Amino acid sequence: MAVAVEPFSDAHIVAAVEQTGARVTGLDEARVLIWLGGPDGFPALPDGIEWVALKTAGIEAFVAAGVIDDKRIWTNASGFYAENVAEHALALLLAGLRQIHTAVRDHWAKEPIDTSVRTLRGATVAIIGAGGIGASLMPRLHACGADVLAVNRSGRPVEGAVRTLPSSRMDEVWPATDHVILAAPATAETHHLINATSLAALPSHCWLVNVARGPLVDQRALYEALRDGEIAGAALDVTDPEPPADDDPLWSLPNVIITPHVANPASGLTREMAPFVARNIEAFVAGEPLIATVSADRDY
Amino acid sequence: MAVAVEPFSDAHIVAAVEQTGARVTGLDEARVLIWLGGPDGFPALPDGIEWVALKTAGIEAFVAAGVIDDKRIWTNASGFYAENVAEHALALLLAGLRQIHTAVRDHWAKEPIDTSVRTLRGATVAIIGAGGIGASLMPRLHACGADVLAVNRSGRPVEGAVRTLPSSRMDEVWPATDHVILAAPATAETHHLINATSLAALPSHCWLVNVARGPLVDQRALYEALRDGEIAGAALDVTDPEPPADDDPLWSLPNVIITPHVANPASGLTREMAPFVARNIEAFVAGEPLIATVSADRDY
Repeated sequence: MAVAVEPFSDAHIVAAVEQTGARVTGLDEARVLIWLGGPDGFPALPDGIEWVALKTAGIEAFVAAGVIDDKRIWTNASGFYAENVAEHALALLLAGLRQIHTAVRDHWAKEPIDTSVRTLRGATVAIIGAGGIGASLMPRLHACGADVLAVNRSGRPVEGAVRTLPSSRMDEVWPATDHVILAAPATAETHHLINATSLAALPSHCWLVNVARGPLVDQRALYEALRDGEIAGAALDVTDPEPPADDDPLWSLPNVIITPHVANPASGLTREMAPFVARNIEAFVAGEPLIATVSADRDY
Repeated sequence: MAVAVEPFSDAHIVAAVEQTGARVTGLDEARVLIWLGGPDGFPALPDGIEWVALKTAGIEAFVAAGVIDDKRIWTNASGFYAENVAEHALALLLAGLRQIHTAVRDHWAKEPIDTSVRTLRGATVAIIGAGGIGASLMPRLHACGADVLAVNRSGRPVEGAVRTLPSSRMDEVWPATDHVILAAPATAETHHLINATSLAALPSHCWLVNVARGPLVDQRALYEALRDGEIAGAALDVTDPEPPADDDPLWSLPNVIITPHVANPASGLTREMAPFVARNIEAFVAGEPLIATVSADRDY
């Protein structure tokens, strides 16, 4: 079995390939392409390539570039980074609730911090897009004494959630939750899911965490809601655009935490991805279904 | 049953007292004193006071002031705030590992943050003083994929810890752990437990979290270890003294997070304490043992 690893080699991925008994070759010989780049520079695929493995969970840029065809299997990395992203989401939510951002900005601001610290115990956290990240978040939130309100497309009950709502009933979520974690793919349906209306319906003590994609949030509406105290704060690992402009007013707000899209750090990505690559190569060789298959007409 | 609540009244505590069927009275009539202040202004106790309930977990200031006698029962608040403090400790550790402090200080510092973010998954966390806070931390750390190395006085195995060591073998802890959370009382034995020797024995990727008491750490040695990269960072809710001086060099380090002693915020303290007060009054009336009894000769 011949596997191409492009546009550059990577020790974690090569080791995973070789561990399955497959060998790393050039593109022309290969049956499989593991593509570690973005859509720019994506090669014309020889007919011999039966499966292309992409390294990201969100593939909207590949879809937009018209890279994904229907001549072979395509996989993304959906779920591969769920544990890492879930940890970052919990870190962001706790940092907001425990006022760590304020403590970092303002030395020993005892009185304002003491009266602003909140606890996750007893809170309800809505996870919007309760897939792999949601499943990884659930035990972490439960261990902190919080309940989960899950939102997915179908509304099919998510195990461990006290309640699951379909995305068609999103307007029921906002008044029923204390905090919100966005973990849904960027699609036409999720575009500006957080907007002036949803922000007004959320409780004033709400922290919004976004570890999904920037365009899920109407950022102007978010700025206004944060400025006016409609919600307590926002902890964002993703923004729209990225990075925000230097003069974006979000930077000036005391109740905002922005991390630079590092919930799944690029520098550790192939290490996280490697065991899933090995598992999928073994499935491919055995003629079994691959995990995380995608198609261009379903852009997540 | 007559209970005095001094030096000021508090709605949460009064409600807890009355919920048990007891009534709030002046000190001269009371059998019980719930003292919501510090050692300053502590009253001369009438002989009728059979039990004094203090509001803090650490009682070293009351011991130092000679307030605690052997004529009656004394309780502290040991364990009452464990869940809240454990949540803060987790928030501090995750904030450090996920570089939230750096993101707050330095807008979209993508490259340095991406390469510095670490995960709690797979890490070993030593909890020094594995009592109530440790027990509350354990499920939170487990849910994040970490193992716990517990340290207590006796070395009696702590359930859920992969290993428990007695405090007499502390020098074996440092090379065996990834991160350290201090949750031990301030005693002669724990004074400067973290010093130049222990810091040198810790791994360079270690984050130190202190939610106990400032004097557990030799702060000058900590500064030097952080400056020289002997450990990765420190997240401190307590310092020595509090607050640190404005020109304390700790403030200038990029790998330090300091929150102003808010793991158990004063503003929420009586709300957290109230259910335990009610439980202890019921035990006192029933002649059963109280929780969290203390004596002056055992200063924790």
